[in-house]
Amino acid sequence: MNLAELARLLGATLDGDPEFVPARLASLGAARPSDLAFVMPKRAFTTAAGALIVATEHPSDPDRHLLRVGDVYAAYARVSAYFDSAPRRAPGVHPSAVVDPSATIGSGAYIGPGAVIEAGVTVGEGCVIESQCVVGADSSLGARSHLMARVTLYHGVRIGADCRVHSGAVIGADGFGFAPSADGWQKIHQIGGVVIGDDCEIGANSCIDRGALDDTRIGHGVKIDDQVMIAHNCVIGDRTAIAACVGMAGSTQLGADCTVGGAAGFAGHIAVCDKVHIGAMTLVAGDIDVPGAYAGGVQGARPMRAWKKNVARFNQLDALARRLIALEKRDNGTKE
Amino acid sequence: MNLAELARLLGATLDGDPEFVPARLASLGAARPSDLAFVMPKRAFTTAAGALIVATEHPSDPDRHLLRVGDVYAAYARVSAYFDSAPRRAPGVHPSAVVDPSATIGSGAYIGPGAVIEAGVTVGEGCVIESQCVVGADSSLGARSHLMARVTLYHGVRIGADCRVHSGAVIGADGFGFAPSADGWQKIHQIGGVVIGDDCEIGANSCIDRGALDDTRIGHGVKIDDQVMIAHNCVIGDRTAIAACVGMAGSTQLGADCTVGGAAGFAGHIAVCDKVHIGAMTLVAGDIDVPGAYAGGVQGARPMRAWKKNVARFNQLDALARRLIALEKRDNGTKE
Amino acid sequence: MNLAELARLLGATLDGDPEFVPARLASLGAARPSDLAFVMPKRAFTTAAGALIVATEHPSDPDRHLLRVGDVYAAYARVSAYFDSAPRRAPGVHPSAVVDPSATIGSGAYIGPGAVIEAGVTVGEGCVIESQCVVGADSSLGARSHLMARVTLYHGVRIGADCRVHSGAVIGADGFGFAPSADGWQKIHQIGGVVIGDDCEIGANSCIDRGALDDTRIGHGVKIDDQVMIAHNCVIGDRTAIAACVGMAGSTQLGADCTVGGAAGFAGHIAVCDKVHIGAMTLVAGDIDVPGAYAGGVQGARPMRAWKKNVARFNQLDALARRLIALEKRDNGTKE
Repeated sequence: MNLAELARLLGATLDGDPEFVPARLASLGAARPSDLAFVMPKRAFTTAAGALIVATEHPSDPDRHLLRVGDVYAAYARVSAYFDSAPRRAPGVHPSAVVDPSATIGSGAYIGPGAVIEAGVTVGEGCVIESQCVVGADSSLGARSHLMARVTLYHGVRIGADCRVHSGAVIGADGFGFAPSADGWQKIHQIGGVVIGDDCEIGANSCIDRGALDDTRIGHGVKIDDQVMIAHNCVIGDRTAIAACVGMAGSTQLGADCTVGGAAGFAGHIAVCDKVHIGAMTLVAGDIDVPGAYAGGVQGARPMRAWKKNVARFNQLDALARRLIALEKRDNGTKE
Repeated sequence: MNLAELARLLGATLDGDPEFVPARLASLGAARPSDLAFVMPKRAFTTAAGALIVATEHPSDPDRHLLRVGDVYAAYARVSAYFDSAPRRAPGVHPSAVVDPSATIGSGAYIGPGAVIEAGVTVGEGCVIESQCVVGADSSLGARSHLMARVTLYHGVRIGADCRVHSGAVIGADGFGFAPSADGWQKIHQIGGVVIGDDCEIGANSCIDRGALDDTRIGHGVKIDDQVMIAHNCVIGDRTAIAACVGMAGSTQLGADCTVGGAAGFAGHIAVCDKVHIGAMTLVAGDIDVPGAYAGGVQGARPMRAWKKNVARFNQLDALARRLIALEKRDNGTKE
Repeated sequence: MNLAELARLLGATLDGDPEFVPARLASLGAARPSDLAFVMPKRAFTTAAGALIVATEHPSDPDRHLLRVGDVYAAYARVSAYFDSAPRRAPGVHPSAVVDPSATIGSGAYIGPGAVIEAGVTVGEGCVIESQCVVGADSSLGARSHLMARVTLYHGVRIGADCRVHSGAVIGADGFGFAPSADGWQKIHQIGGVVIGDDCEIGANSCIDRGALDDTRIGHGVKIDDQVMIAHNCVIGDRTAIAACVGMAGSTQLGADCTVGGAAGFAGHIAVCDKVHIGAMTLVAGDIDVPGAYAGGVQGARPMRAWKKNVARFNQLDALARRLIALEKRDNGTKE
């Protein structure tokens, strides 16, 4: 793709050679004269890049070809697809795949080596199911969805169109449900499913458990990073983005257009409204019904000695507070 | 199964039509007139369910068939098995499985597509080993244990009877053991194994590492949720239940009949007695020898601004406490 | 191996029978008279072991064969390799493996059942690729590296020599990069790779994401435990060791010779210098440029009631501090 074509794709104004074909899309630091890079507005930079995506108001630069756009970051996102070297899969079923005759495989779909497609599965048009995925009975994938290598879908999992699920993700495993009994824990069979909307991404080694009775439900356009754990019967609204290592206990309801920082937790059986932004490593222990930014816990690493003293005081905190209140009372008495 | 049969199974008193056959077991909200649901005692509800599992004292209801039981939740757990649509596997070894001739496969066992059973393995009667599991050399599974798709057992892992291990779980990987040396970290080969009792459940993508010298040991009836990490030489007592995302550092000893909340951590080389209940996201840093409920950390999400102020104060906490103490002294001086 | 040979291997002084052949390497508690165990200096112990690795100054013991060494723990690490019962793999490619004809497989390498080696891959001499690993297009492994069962490398991942990657690890999955747009999140294709040095170990179910543009980079001799998540464009220095369940957000730079405690987190876009030691469950939220030990959060489990009171006070902490300051002012006023 030359710069003229990229300019057309991005709706960009080209200030440079339309015939220039960038060899790579690269970071400012790593770019060579043959490469394309991008510069966020008002950011100082040095680069050897031969071509740049820049903001409309960027000063002209005789040494470089410039693509001027309104939203640099969005333009970068858009062009990134054209520089992606991930292998493309030709349609077809690898001979080592094990596909149940009752499964429906859409036209243009790819089923990779060792993949297992069980009875009653529906794989949509143009889906890519990479090596060694297991798609359990009666599960379905909408058009163009892409399972990277070694994804497991249990039975009865419904995934929408244009989704991407990364390696090691497990969708539809049993929720953690047991009833106490005189003989120990009695298993509650998890007979709900999992329903995931369109245009979702689910990270490597993440888990989304099936519902106990009702389905676990993930909306449209939801983005989930690696090693996220979503327990049975959680409900997640559209376009919510969840960073890595987050855990959501059972029946958490999380609204639309939320963001969740890494390793945050949700206590379960709580409801968080739309447009809530949770800080990293926060434990959300109750409902949130006002949009906005929230955080919890004690962030920040301190030198070990100082930190130990503060933690020791934390464990005296209620007593210290009471002593402060007592002192205030005495002080008030003195004053009167 | 009709209600008469369900009543017999549960030891329930039937107040309704014995011939009624519930189409599904469903939540109160999702149930249709053809379905069975359950109502916890003294809980207000509305439902379209045609049949209900209720507590003995539940008022009679002319519009519904009632199954009266002493323990509603246990009854629900019990019937859930009969409404589970998970595929049943017929005994046999799939032609694409790779089974070492020296392995012993019990009668009635199922070995799924692509599964690998290495030398010297013993698979008990009626076991189900789903697609693409890898069972390492000399490992063993007791009767009726069930590995879901894509479970890895390393060599020398012994799992009891009636266990269920979910996809992506890894049992018997090397413990994290290295000796410092002038050339960097020198590996300590992990030559212990893992021993897991009967009737355990291990969640998706959880890890239980093999011991350094002695075995890592999990008791009977232990329930472990997804993405739990149990390091080398941990010992876990019978019937303990561990929620998702918990991490236990090496040589943690955790008693019987404990419960651990999500994302809690154990510092390693500590002992926690029986009947201890640990809150979510708590870091257990020392021994606990008195049964009861414990928690740590700072839970709860607060509006970001307020939280930041409190965190800033936390980092002054020892100094603030000293100032309080100084003030108390001066106040005492004033008083005297 | 008899004690004479072990003494030669370790540079140890033998005080006992050179012909004694230890049956097992065992812990002090589990050792039998036929076994070898080790005793850390100045540690009290009882054992039935017939042979011991001890410090040079250890008193002689007529009942046992002693191997005296300068560094007991290092000697234990060294001999542990000789007692490891992990299966050895004979060179060759299992007939069920799917190896692209354009891949280069080094001499002496083993490719296990069901493994998938894509186009353009280079597998070094003596590598072991266990069952069902997937090695994506154009990835490479240096000599003698060992992928345990069910490891996924995406395309364009370069791993050095003498590395060991445990089951379920996923290396090279997409970093979590999306640009906000009017239509929701727009994917930023992750076109960087992952580069890992020599002599690294990566734990079970850990994830190392590929870079957005530049590579994610792990140095030499880095040891990473299970369930660690390293996001796109992190850079980790040589010999750094990271305990289980740690999460590092994007573009974290972590120096050489660091150690990180379990379940700690890094906020991303921060730099931590060499020789920094981070406590368990700490959230490192900013740069650290002085070597030493750091911690954060509030560790330690307390009885639930006491803890709840302290947490309640934490949420009043800024207000309490202000009240303390006010009281100090009034007190100073009184004094003057």
